[in-house]
Amino acid sequence: MTHCILPSVKPLDSTVFAANRQRVQTLSPLVHCMTNDVVQEITANVLLSIGASPAMVVAKEESGTFAAISSALLINIGTPRSDILEAMHCAVDAANTHNVPWVLDPVAAGVIAWRDGVIHSFLEKHPACVRGNASEIRALAGVGSGGKGVDSLDSSESALEAAVKLAKDYQTLVCVTGESDFATDAERIVSVKGGTAEATLVVGTGCSLSAMVAAYLAKADDPLLAVASACAHAKAAQEKALETSKGPGSFKVAYIDALHAI
Amino acid sequence: MTHCILPSVKPLDSTVFAANRQRVQTLSPLVHCMTNDVVQEITANVLLSIGASPAMVVAKEESGTFAAISSALLINIGTPRSDILEAMHCAVDAANTHNVPWVLDPVAAGVIAWRDGVIHSFLEKHPACVRGNASEIRALAGVGSGGKGVDSLDSSESALEAAVKLAKDYQTLVCVTGESDFATDAERIVSVKGGTAEATLVVGTGCSLSAMVAAYLAKADDPLLAVASACAHAKAAQEKALETSKGPGSFKVAYIDALHAI
Amino acid sequence: MTHCILPSVKPLDSTVFAANRQRVQTLSPLVHCMTNDVVQEITANVLLSIGASPAMVVAKEESGTFAAISSALLINIGTPRSDILEAMHCAVDAANTHNVPWVLDPVAAGVIAWRDGVIHSFLEKHPACVRGNASEIRALAGVGSGGKGVDSLDSSESALEAAVKLAKDYQTLVCVTGESDFATDAERIVSVKGGTAEATLVVGTGCSLSAMVAAYLAKADDPLLAVASACAHAKAAQEKALETSKGPGSFKVAYIDALHAI
Repeated sequence: MTHCILPSVKPLDSTVFAANRQRVQTLSPLVHCMTNDVVQEITANVLLSIGASPAMVVAKEESGTFAAISSALLINIGTPRSDILEAMHCAVDAANTHNVPWVLDPVAAGVIAWRDGVIHSFLEKHPACVRGNASEIRALAGVGSGGKGVDSLDSSESALEAAVKLAKDYQTLVCVTGESDFATDAERIVSVKGGTAEATLVVGTGCSLSAMVAAYLAKADDPLLAVASACAHAKAAQEKALETSKGPGSFKVAYIDALHAI
Repeated sequence: MTHCILPSVKPLDSTVFAANRQRVQTLSPLVHCMTNDVVQEITANVLLSIGASPAMVVAKEESGTFAAISSALLINIGTPRSDILEAMHCAVDAANTHNVPWVLDPVAAGVIAWRDGVIHSFLEKHPACVRGNASEIRALAGVGSGGKGVDSLDSSESALEAAVKLAKDYQTLVCVTGESDFATDAERIVSVKGGTAEATLVVGTGCSLSAMVAAYLAKADDPLLAVASACAHAKAAQEKALETSKGPGSFKVAYIDALHAI
Repeated sequence: MTHCILPSVKPLDSTVFAANRQRVQTLSPLVHCMTNDVVQEITANVLLSIGASPAMVVAKEESGTFAAISSALLINIGTPRSDILEAMHCAVDAANTHNVPWVLDPVAAGVIAWRDGVIHSFLEKHPACVRGNASEIRALAGVGSGGKGVDSLDSSESALEAAVKLAKDYQTLVCVTGESDFATDAERIVSVKGGTAEATLVVGTGCSLSAMVAAYLAKADDPLLAVASACAHAKAAQEKALETSKGPGSFKVAYIDALHAI
């Protein structure tokens, strides 16, 4: 990859966040979640806390029908298996037919070749947004250093160029998250600062952020700003949670409380 | 459906509740749970908190054997797939052979035709009780307005006639839950008031109530009152939880604490 | 089984625990978890809290590849199904080839013949450690009284002879946990006292302890003492959690906090 001149990075405006957060609360989007075995419960609770309506429909006999009537769809490749992958493709195809926005969470991209093939089979179907950590986004763009299991070893800034390339190559929004979060459509980059490192000690904070991104994309005027608003919601809740938590257990509880309070 | 004269609604007596709650504590029923991907952990923790012993046995090679030695069985159709459905039918058949009471939770009935077929394949096998929200119970009785994903859009009162019809048609207890809960055997209707709306912001409070219903049905003298007692236990715990919670995250924690304390 | 003279039981030295705990924190071992449907989230959160890096990789297409690059592997037979079992065997074979230590958690051994066959198919592949409750360890050694579902009816002391026999027969470490925990390599027995009964009211405390055992086995100088150190970490956290908890819900939260604080 030759180095290109990146768009300038602009912070998300707080009034834009407020408008997007209000829209999610009012709309209560039905988010069809097809996610991994580990984060099912926290994903549902995070969506309920922000005022969305989660539904996990995973059989191939009904995933397409349900995706078609949902407000948004989440595809998370954390624990892929042949049966769920077939059902996920049914859902994605139905979502594309019915203009339902869908988010791809490419968990642990860059670690195992078979999984990378699985992720690319979805990437080629035009997700509205790809949300991942720096290692995952770099790997997808072909400049990856590889992660350690599901955890990123790179800073999110280090993946900015990869994010822009990925957004351009696949005509999708890309959201790379970490100490700072960035969302890009290849022409603009919006940043969200804040948050806390404690979130990395709770499984599913990243995966459930992808579900929040899906919720925020439902009927969004400016999808890029909607994606960044989901990140801003999560980061603000993390900061609020840190005020009262005493460790990873109580941080998780306070995070769910804070998502609801914001 | 022509309108019929409903049995009069009688509130659950508090001493009846107390006796049933004591029985569950003393008996510590072994509850075989075959439930959806999202609520596995909260279902187990709710059962442990009320003094029951949960076990999730899901392979077709062992589900029938295990159902036969259990005190009660839960069948929850939240995330049906061909493999688990086959194992569920093995368990139901064994439960029926060995007089083990089983509860059917018809998650999202009335939304997708394929799922409705799945639910009816179990409904025809004579569950001891069907526990659902108003949208689900109305859909099963053929008078449904349809839910939004897994959430009900109807009040539980609006499903009373449907509940009685369902109880009569299938010779089963029906428990319809919401702001008020009702249990009926077609000839009697028992009501339980109270509870809190916050419970709807925590995934699995309804699904785990179905597991509590199964626990309460084990060796019950009057199954209808046992079902209503499970509802009363949950509603009392919700009210207690509300006193100390600051949002959906801490409400869930306090709810588990309260189930145990009652 | 004829009664044999058991090795004398020696308590774990606190400085040995401290050294092992420090090693896990520094190493941050990547623990490949193949566990049951119920405890996925608590297992991941427990590992994150102690400073390890959990990853749930469950497809047969990638489980062997991932086990080979992991620091340790957990095989938990809580909800076995044909697809996951095949993937587990791929992972175990790869772990053995690459000298990755793996832990077998034989959930509910002694209750159902089919499951016992499954468990033995793994036991024969030389796990580094078998971690179970007294009923499970007695059943595996052929002296079982049988459990009630997944809960033990025996004291851990009553399984000491069975644990030593199992360790000798299969050339593995055996860790039997309960009110007191014991680890043995057939020639030594190390005990860990303490902990709280409240832990039995939270699903996954035992299963996630097996994951902690796997984390502690990564690059351990003396694997037996590493196993006992994992038990000591859990028991100390239980005691700390009890100080602030008000029931099973808040105990779980405080337990995760305490695992991190220790």
